[in-house]
Amino acid sequence: MQPVILLVRPQLVENIGTTARAMLNCGLEQLRLVAPRDPWPLDNTHQARMLAAASGADAVLEQASVFPSLAEAIGDLHTLYAATARPRDMLKPVLTPRLAMAEVRQRLAAGEKIGFLFGPERTGLTNDDLSVVEKIITIPANPAFSSFNLAQAVLVLAYEWCSQQQEAHPETLAYGKTRPATKAELQHFFDHLERELEGHGFFTTPELKPSMVQNLRNALLRGQWSEQEVRTWHGVVTALARNAR
Amino acid sequence: MQPVILLVRPQLVENIGTTARAMLNCGLEQLRLVAPRDPWPLDNTHQARMLAAASGADAVLEQASVFPSLAEAIGDLHTLYAATARPRDMLKPVLTPRLAMAEVRQRLAAGEKIGFLFGPERTGLTNDDLSVVEKIITIPANPAFSSFNLAQAVLVLAYEWCSQQQEAHPETLAYGKTRPATKAELQHFFDHLERELEGHGFFTTPELKPSMVQNLRNALLRGQWSEQEVRTWHGVVTALARNAR
Repeated sequence: MQPVILLVRPQLVENIGTTARAMLNCGLEQLRLVAPRDPWPLDNTHQARMLAAASGADAVLEQASVFPSLAEAIGDLHTLYAATARPRDMLKPVLTPRLAMAEVRQRLAAGEKIGFLFGPERTGLTNDDLSVVEKIITIPANPAFSSFNLAQAVLVLAYEWCSQQQEAHPETLAYGKTRPATKAELQHFFDHLERELEGHGFFTTPELKPSMVQNLRNALLRGQWSEQEVRTWHGVVTALARNAR
Repeated sequence: MQPVILLVRPQLVENIGTTARAMLNCGLEQLRLVAPRDPWPLDNTHQARMLAAASGADAVLEQASVFPSLAEAIGDLHTLYAATARPRDMLKPVLTPRLAMAEVRQRLAAGEKIGFLFGPERTGLTNDDLSVVEKIITIPANPAFSSFNLAQAVLVLAYEWCSQQQEAHPETLAYGKTRPATKAELQHFFDHLERELEGHGFFTTPELKPSMVQNLRNALLRGQWSEQEVRTWHGVVTALARNAR
């Protein structure tokens, strides 16, 4: 089971298309449109603009359902979350996207049907819209510039959906008294190494040189060299490049 | 200190604008452009298209620096991450956005300068581009539809930046043998309640009725009622609405 994405009175068909793309990128496929501004089904011009923005996520749009009112769109759902700025005049629980999605996964596992509401581009959700939802999701944001594009807001939730299915492993590296080399220091070393290799006839097949250079650099980059190590390796190359006694 | 966002050979000025918006939404302000397709500084037409897409994030664009090559854009940075699909023919560490950003916060705290590379819309980063980065960030995605819009990919990293500065608290509620009420069941109850209140002259000032109804619903919604509780409260309203003996 997946949560349902509900766009409430969306204004721009491009944003409906980019929303579908963001959803499908993260494996979400259930979209409901509530009273979209442009009449549905769309005319050919609007349909073409929407599909261009969707970049291939047509299946989500073809399966989307359209409802004339919010009340009709939510009748079968058990719990609703609204993505909006922290409301000033309503007493509602406010969650981060991360915690909301963790909770939603539990609710879905328990058999609930869940909906996420997103408001119109210009005005956002009204207090009347918000009166049907249990909880508010507020995306962490720059307080001085906190209004997200509609599809960007959907992506944050969709990303949390996808992200919470995946695990990975962090890693660290202790540099001690030295520090990581800068790109300029590394590039200087690569230039030195490749110049000497060239001079020593290492690149016997000219057309293979670019990929050989890439492979050399990749092998060294994985070492995450310190500034000290770069200096050491300059010495190595210089030494090797000297004529043998 | 903040990580630097580098757009490598971006093709569409609209995507540069939406990238700036996504960055500023999450408090990131350092943008570098490497060999953008449209000549820089932009002509008036392209400039207008970029600013429209930025929706007010002009400050990020005004401070952005433009470089003719990737090598020149990264010289002062210590560690680079590239956002791209998992590479098939390169041995590089691959991290989730979440773990990458946690690591980046440590590196920034240690005084490093960090860059995130994003490739051109159509083709993505080349192996030559990737040969300068230490690590790959792969956004968790639907394997059947994994190509993100450029600004959407930037947003995921920017969101992780902002998100990891914020804490919050989860919550649970044990429904036991019953289940949460559906929206249709709740709406039916609200209709019942409000009809009876209307009949009993509760709404003395008609223009205040919509906000009073919202407040009533909000108060009840916070209770996250079960289906059983809704039935009980129908009984409560019915009982109260009867004429007193």
